[in-house]
Amino acid sequence: MLHRRLAARGHLIDTGLMSRFLAAVLGGGGKYEILRFDVGKTKRDFSEVELDVRAGSQRALDAIVANLITLGCHLVEDREVTLVPAPKDGVAPAEFYSTTNHATRVRSGGRWIDVQRQRMDGMVVVRRGRAVCTLMRNLKRGDPVVCGVEGVEIFPPFEEQETEHFSFMKSETSSERAVEVKARDVARMVRATKSAGLRVVVVPGPVVVHTGAGEALARLIKRGWFDAVLSGNALAVHDVERALFGTSLGVDLRTGVPAREGHMNHLRAINAVRAAGSLRAAVRRGVLKSGVMYECVKRDVPFVLAGSIRDDGPLPDTQMDLIEAQAEYASQLEGAGLVIVLSSMLHGIGVGNMLPSAVKLVCVDIHQSVVTKLLDRGSGHALGVVTDVSAFVHRLERELKGSA
Amino acid sequence: MLHRRLAARGHLIDTGLMSRFLAAVLGGGGKYEILRFDVGKTKRDFSEVELDVRAGSQRALDAIVANLITLGCHLVEDREVTLVPAPKDGVAPAEFYSTTNHATRVRSGGRWIDVQRQRMDGMVVVRRGRAVCTLMRNLKRGDPVVCGVEGVEIFPPFEEQETEHFSFMKSETSSERAVEVKARDVARMVRATKSAGLRVVVVPGPVVVHTGAGEALARLIKRGWFDAVLSGNALAVHDVERALFGTSLGVDLRTGVPAREGHMNHLRAINAVRAAGSLRAAVRRGVLKSGVMYECVKRDVPFVLAGSIRDDGPLPDTQMDLIEAQAEYASQLEGAGLVIVLSSMLHGIGVGNMLPSAVKLVCVDIHQSVVTKLLDRGSGHALGVVTDVSAFVHRLERELKGSA
Amino acid sequence: MLHRRLAARGHLIDTGLMSRFLAAVLGGGGKYEILRFDVGKTKRDFSEVELDVRAGSQRALDAIVANLITLGCHLVEDREVTLVPAPKDGVAPAEFYSTTNHATRVRSGGRWIDVQRQRMDGMVVVRRGRAVCTLMRNLKRGDPVVCGVEGVEIFPPFEEQETEHFSFMKSETSSERAVEVKARDVARMVRATKSAGLRVVVVPGPVVVHTGAGEALARLIKRGWFDAVLSGNALAVHDVERALFGTSLGVDLRTGVPAREGHMNHLRAINAVRAAGSLRAAVRRGVLKSGVMYECVKRDVPFVLAGSIRDDGPLPDTQMDLIEAQAEYASQLEGAGLVIVLSSMLHGIGVGNMLPSAVKLVCVDIHQSVVTKLLDRGSGHALGVVTDVSAFVHRLERELKGSA
Amino acid sequence: MLHRRLAARGHLIDTGLMSRFLAAVLGGGGKYEILRFDVGKTKRDFSEVELDVRAGSQRALDAIVANLITLGCHLVEDREVTLVPAPKDGVAPAEFYSTTNHATRVRSGGRWIDVQRQRMDGMVVVRRGRAVCTLMRNLKRGDPVVCGVEGVEIFPPFEEQETEHFSFMKSETSSERAVEVKARDVARMVRATKSAGLRVVVVPGPVVVHTGAGEALARLIKRGWFDAVLSGNALAVHDVERALFGTSLGVDLRTGVPAREGHMNHLRAINAVRAAGSLRAAVRRGVLKSGVMYECVKRDVPFVLAGSIRDDGPLPDTQMDLIEAQAEYASQLEGAGLVIVLSSMLHGIGVGNMLPSAVKLVCVDIHQSVVTKLLDRGSGHALGVVTDVSAFVHRLERELKGSA
Repeated sequence: MLHRRLAARGHLIDTGLMSRFLAAVLGGGGKYEILRFDVGKTKRDFSEVELDVRAGSQRALDAIVANLITLGCHLVEDREVTLVPAPKDGVAPAEFYSTTNHATRVRSGGRWIDVQRQRMDGMVVVRRGRAVCTLMRNLKRGDPVVCGVEGVEIFPPFEEQETEHFSFMKSETSSERAVEVKARDVARMVRATKSAGLRVVVVPGPVVVHTGAGEALARLIKRGWFDAVLSGNALAVHDVERALFGTSLGVDLRTGVPAREGHMNHLRAINAVRAAGSLRAAVRRGVLKSGVMYECVKRDVPFVLAGSIRDDGPLPDTQMDLIEAQAEYASQLEGAGLVIVLSSMLHGIGVGNMLPSAVKLVCVDIHQSVVTKLLDRGSGHALGVVTDVSAFVHRLERELKGSA
Repeated sequence: MLHRRLAARGHLIDTGLMSRFLAAVLGGGGKYEILRFDVGKTKRDFSEVELDVRAGSQRALDAIVANLITLGCHLVEDREVTLVPAPKDGVAPAEFYSTTNHATRVRSGGRWIDVQRQRMDGMVVVRRGRAVCTLMRNLKRGDPVVCGVEGVEIFPPFEEQETEHFSFMKSETSSERAVEVKARDVARMVRATKSAGLRVVVVPGPVVVHTGAGEALARLIKRGWFDAVLSGNALAVHDVERALFGTSLGVDLRTGVPAREGHMNHLRAINAVRAAGSLRAAVRRGVLKSGVMYECVKRDVPFVLAGSIRDDGPLPDTQMDLIEAQAEYASQLEGAGLVIVLSSMLHGIGVGNMLPSAVKLVCVDIHQSVVTKLLDRGSGHALGVVTDVSAFVHRLERELKGSA
Repeated sequence: MLHRRLAARGHLIDTGLMSRFLAAVLGGGGKYEILRFDVGKTKRDFSEVELDVRAGSQRALDAIVANLITLGCHLVEDREVTLVPAPKDGVAPAEFYSTTNHATRVRSGGRWIDVQRQRMDGMVVVRRGRAVCTLMRNLKRGDPVVCGVEGVEIFPPFEEQETEHFSFMKSETSSERAVEVKARDVARMVRATKSAGLRVVVVPGPVVVHTGAGEALARLIKRGWFDAVLSGNALAVHDVERALFGTSLGVDLRTGVPAREGHMNHLRAINAVRAAGSLRAAVRRGVLKSGVMYECVKRDVPFVLAGSIRDDGPLPDTQMDLIEAQAEYASQLEGAGLVIVLSSMLHGIGVGNMLPSAVKLVCVDIHQSVVTKLLDRGSGHALGVVTDVSAFVHRLERELKGSA
Repeated sequence: MLHRRLAARGHLIDTGLMSRFLAAVLGGGGKYEILRFDVGKTKRDFSEVELDVRAGSQRALDAIVANLITLGCHLVEDREVTLVPAPKDGVAPAEFYSTTNHATRVRSGGRWIDVQRQRMDGMVVVRRGRAVCTLMRNLKRGDPVVCGVEGVEIFPPFEEQETEHFSFMKSETSSERAVEVKARDVARMVRATKSAGLRVVVVPGPVVVHTGAGEALARLIKRGWFDAVLSGNALAVHDVERALFGTSLGVDLRTGVPAREGHMNHLRAINAVRAAGSLRAAVRRGVLKSGVMYECVKRDVPFVLAGSIRDDGPLPDTQMDLIEAQAEYASQLEGAGLVIVLSSMLHGIGVGNMLPSAVKLVCVDIHQSVVTKLLDRGSGHALGVVTDVSAFVHRLERELKGSA
């Protein structure tokens, strides 16, 4: 196996840098051995570490080393930078080193030279003992441009204590990610949880039905992927309205246009279930013939509908005593390995308050602020997906082929 | 054809009510004839209208009439309300009338009775000359409940001038709509525009590539659906990065995980195009072999990349003189019948400023505030879709089968 | 009084144009008389209107006429456009007419000329029988530029029925408005409601306390501005935590940094009230000495705390039976003239469901989507304010000087 | 000085736990000495640490120890838990220990007992060798409840490599923070930067003027707090429109209602400056007499207005060659110690791309997604404030009393 030795010095622990070094090695498919780690005894002392990094290919090793150098490690051997002339004006050599916004020095002519005009996404031109950060478009043909990472050393700033609360970490909630990738990740988590003999609990909001994903969710329940449904009155009302009238809050789900007499449909849906006596009775009597609640009843998947101040009706099945509702939620969460919250902030927070940290939590919502809020109080194993919940549920259904 | 006669009185024009009456008739599939319309001459005068409403079935007519009554019309003939006893406690008769939050009166015993305790989503119980708005759960078996809309009259509040700026209209930007329905609508608009011999212009932001929809967009271009692409440097850079390295801003689009050496890829992509001389040259030389820009070059679909203060590079094709860029945008918009903005606020506003109002405008973005902002300055024919842009583009591709 | 006569022809009612004409006159401080109004009998027929518009000054009248022309009216007399030469390259004459994006024609040389290259925010240059929409920067010295609105006619597109659902109205929820102006509006509404002998009900979310506005809200209650407080368990818990420990969810409200032992404070706050027996008892025993709940108890302002699935504790005062909670909310809303929802989506929707439409509703939230959702189901008299709730409450306090 | 000894064992570095231990000590006002730190050599090995923690008071020490235990440290001495009987039903003893959602054990009767039914925000009742996590409301009078943290040990989950990308860190961008506290922090940063002889650069978006904070920003410039203004055409146009007409995009900034003829005002503002020749000339000639640009000219504060595809006009001062605009921005950023971005995503990203990481960056915006995006590419010293920008600027002005 190929390997290289790197070192770093600074406030490696209280800044979290040391953790990021190791994550970079593992994330790049490599392995590490910590050769030396002198931890500063107090806050003022620097720590020093020396790492041996290994990888299966030169390419992988180079990538890991490049990342470590970006984080502030340096190669133990003092090699010179590689300089390659720019092939034409405004064009860099193919293997150019691209800069970070951190203070940088390069080794050339046997000594370390500080790079001037440091900025992000530039190249370093070294000439006559001077190193200057230069934009690609300002390169001149023949400029000696640093390539690769040999001989490059970077100094990320150490955050002093008073600025500590300025630190920031890339959150996992950006909307700029492919929904496909996330759905595949969640599908994998669902399968792994089932395989481990643990329960998968879904917490869908009414938006799931309103955006046209109710039937997809119903099929996932029918095929056995979810072991309990925790929600509120509105989800079930929307779901029954869809099953009875094809509308959700009066909007026709096939055409997207408000249905004639539509604004009365949700009350008619409630009335139909109240007349039958319960959701279960409505299924038994053939009143309710499809949808999320129908499949729960048919497949004996337990559901809890917690009441709230905004409920119409409510359905006879909605638990309006919230002490009782919390107890029923908690009981359904026993033995859970994974909880998936689908656009349901209220019930999502309720569930989050009850969960042991070992349970994985997935939150899907179109509003980043909702995802942030849910994960803020979540467990260590939390995944936020900022996307259209309908697209997500449909995609999840495609990923979870077959029955559980 | 079945018909009924309705009348209304009030500030019908300055409140927009008259327009909503007519929309309710047309929206319900009916037709109207305005029998009489006495317009108040000044602000203080009431207007009075009498309408004859027709529809093809009793069901359709009933629905239209119900909606008109909700809006404040009343039937010309003074019929009594229909009262049906509640079948059991907490359950309404099947055809119950559900209340609005507007002041209401019902006709019973030959006179009009004001409904007490008015609120939304209740039923009206009439007994001993009193009419009370009652929640479904509070109905008792045998309570005489108003059914249908005969004998019901509603009084929506008239907004006085000083409260005029409190008025609100249901915007068409809610995320709580099915992406499928919207994509189908847009596909229909695309086809209609092409059939009319007009151009369809797409304005995609870099998020389209970053969320994994670049290939779908490229296929739509390849199949001839779009006549011009207006965007900026970043879209093309992301697109080339994807084509060359399979990443976007260093994130692997297949796996969603940051690529090794990924953060350098976008600069390498820029460098490769600069080395070739232009996007067109990069295609000709076989450097660029797929993606949005590739298909534009191959199919001779014109594109304009407008520069901005945040651009890296830029690509040789990016127009950094913005006077020139605006002129090139405007030139591509000539003859356009439809413009589709995909998660690109900056370029979307630029385009919006240039468009004649006859051109249809579609804006897709995950942030409602962006959609609102774009439509705020948009034309009369504007459609906002708040959703994951990746899901939307993939769905649009499915709806636009075959070639243009 | 000065006056002018204007006319318009088209689908004036079903498009809402007629309503906008009248609003433009009233909004500009003018008055109107409808001289003639021939309403199209059916959907296909055009309507025709002739208006006499009056205003107190030439300036006001000109402004109203300019706005009406932008909306598609034209002056009854066929006057010629006024043409003034551009004073230098790239500069328009001071009184230039600025274009809309609608099709336009101008009267010159005794005939109507269609304007070419129509776009928004341009000028119209008329020369040798041609009229061209020109950007300011492209004007040449001496170009004859249309000034004022005489001789200008505009043709807004009529929306056909099938595109009807693309229509859009400027919503009143933009964040790009001064918080001061909104707070003043709301203060005026509060005073008017009190003067009318009606109740003002406030529905604050826990964010009010968490963002540091709890004391300002408490002062407003102390000074008698609010007649009832409708909220949930969390508001009261945050409020008591602030009163007892100076923190909210463990964050020190003076310094913004997490307090030592902070994450236990909200449970300690709950425990202290449970030990006393109720909020009222906690005030009586001197345990609770400040804050929103304290002032409610002291001043006998009724409050209802509705329970929810996410509640910790709860406080003994929290109503966990939601049927009962809805009844108590409804009872406090009787006699209300104004309801102010402060960052509380859940309770705001609950309240909205119960309100007669004559009651005014104000919704303040930092998320536009929440404001939209609340107003969507709201009454006719609704005002949305997208802003930081803390800034709003502090500003409202400044506007509501003195006691009620 | 008081001190205690704690230890921990596990994946302390790659999970970042070790960093959080030290942050907890420093954040609580304490000091630490690392007595022993055996770092696992490879990914599979556990690390072990022993810390001596000191603080100035028993209270401070207890708080630090409580936090460390929550994070997974345990006291080196095996003491028994303290059990205090619940004083009445549903009430805990005052010093109760409140649970996390992590697996927990308590030491009682000389041995460690696993706590059953683990969840967040509960109490631990220990009886007959069993320890059960119990909700406050379910406590019975006399139940022996764990108080303090002696004898409590917590086991946060270790995240395995495959779930590594689910990790999440509390971001500093929540809107649920007091704007006052943030404004004070930023004021302190401004003063510290000026004292250090570094430049403070402000990057305001047009929303600053549109929300009524233009005059406050102008006063801050007048009093010398900002050394350069980087923005675009729109800010200056809004600012001049406000100075000339009292409106912004046609909305009267004092009343919030659209001005008569308002929609033409921004073009008139552009025309007036174009007629004068430049902003500087407009000030010299007495055309422009107040506002942000006026104060810049008067006080010789350099400004750069970068053009964009959406610009009207533009003003003669707007740099429409973006290569040149980037160079001018970069030049103004030399010597900067602090950059404050006020609701300006486009220019904020432009600036972020150019900044060395040693420069502090503050981003204020009402949309959390914008703040996240800006900080995502930002420096190590970045502070996000999600709030109404108008409220923030006004507050900042109050905090920055006097002149620089």
